[in-house]
Amino acid sequence: MHHISFTLGGLVLSLAVYVWIVLRAGQARGKYGVAAPAVTGAPEFERALRGQQNTVEQMVLFLPLLGLASYLWSDIAAGVYGLVWSVGRVLYVEAYIRNPAKRSLGFLLSGGLSMGVLIAVVVTFGLRHLGIG
Amino acid sequence: MHHISFTLGGLVLSLAVYVWIVLRAGQARGKYGVAAPAVTGAPEFERALRGQQNTVEQMVLFLPLLGLASYLWSDIAAGVYGLVWSVGRVLYVEAYIRNPAKRSLGFLLSGGLSMGVLIAVVVTFGLRHLGIG
Amino acid sequence: MHHISFTLGGLVLSLAVYVWIVLRAGQARGKYGVAAPAVTGAPEFERALRGQQNTVEQMVLFLPLLGLASYLWSDIAAGVYGLVWSVGRVLYVEAYIRNPAKRSLGFLLSGGLSMGVLIAVVVTFGLRHLGIG
Repeated sequence: MHHISFTLGGLVLSLAVYVWIVLRAGQARGKYGVAAPAVTGAPEFERALRGQQNTVEQMVLFLPLLGLASYLWSDIAAGVYGLVWSVGRVLYVEAYIRNPAKRSLGFLLSGGLSMGVLIAVVVTFGLRHLGIG
Repeated sequence: MHHISFTLGGLVLSLAVYVWIVLRAGQARGKYGVAAPAVTGAPEFERALRGQQNTVEQMVLFLPLLGLASYLWSDIAAGVYGLVWSVGRVLYVEAYIRNPAKRSLGFLLSGGLSMGVLIAVVVTFGLRHLGIG
Repeated sequence: MHHISFTLGGLVLSLAVYVWIVLRAGQARGKYGVAAPAVTGAPEFERALRGQQNTVEQMVLFLPLLGLASYLWSDIAAGVYGLVWSVGRVLYVEAYIRNPAKRSLGFLLSGGLSMGVLIAVVVTFGLRHLGIG
């Protein structure tokens, strides 16, 4: 297992962060008395829900990229990506709930990071097929 | 193929259930006359849509965990997880559409199960790295 | 790497299309002055957002199916699936933003295609377990 240990560590960490974000939105639903299936109500609830939805949107990009980073680069590279992305998500959701104007840093470390990783994956992929990388 | 047959069976089953849930929400959109891009309207439609969105939220957790269960534990363990999760999702969405108050069992067997699997994955992962598991 | 080159190419292309769709919705949010966490406003923004959400809903089906197509059939089959799906998504989102009534073709080439692939995967899987395929 050890040749993909960091990748799996990053994956498991990101899933744990995701569950925490889902529970956070569920808690806000209860706290501000927003009965399902309503998706509008107190701004705090709406922000917690949007933070969760944004994380789902990011997950479908992050999960395949984590695998690609591990496959094309290295186990450690993927592990670092998973770690930074997970920290970025916690910062993002916390900022979104407390003060949406301050959520840029968290976004940069997760969504922004993923866009950078995608560009680097495209470059790596292109170079290898040209026989350079 | 046979060493991951149950995992793939669970995966294919969960994707079939997911498509059924998506079609169910599309059908409710037509039945209650809610033209896209509207996401509000008859409560039955809103609940079918929320049931679908909740399933998307669960899929990004379930799909990686299914792979982890197969990799860390066994093909059969992953297959059982996929089977129970799929049944749970059907129960959840059916209950959500008919009587939201009764959706707990379906949630327990899908979302609740995934949280249990995640905790067990973290424990397995930790024990193996300590050289115990 | 070459035995899964087309699969990875289709995957990377679909991720790039996805990022473009997410940026398109973010741009519409800015252009029509819809401050987060609001999800309603100008119809153009709402359609761009729904186009993105629909793509997330499709991704959780597409990504596992891409892997299954590559594993059960061939690298080239998966690559073609990834290519057609990506083109379909661009057509779908562009049509959704400009004229929702014309989004059928794009949907057929992405969501419709995935349903066809799922059915074919189920058949392949069934036949192999009966020892025929």
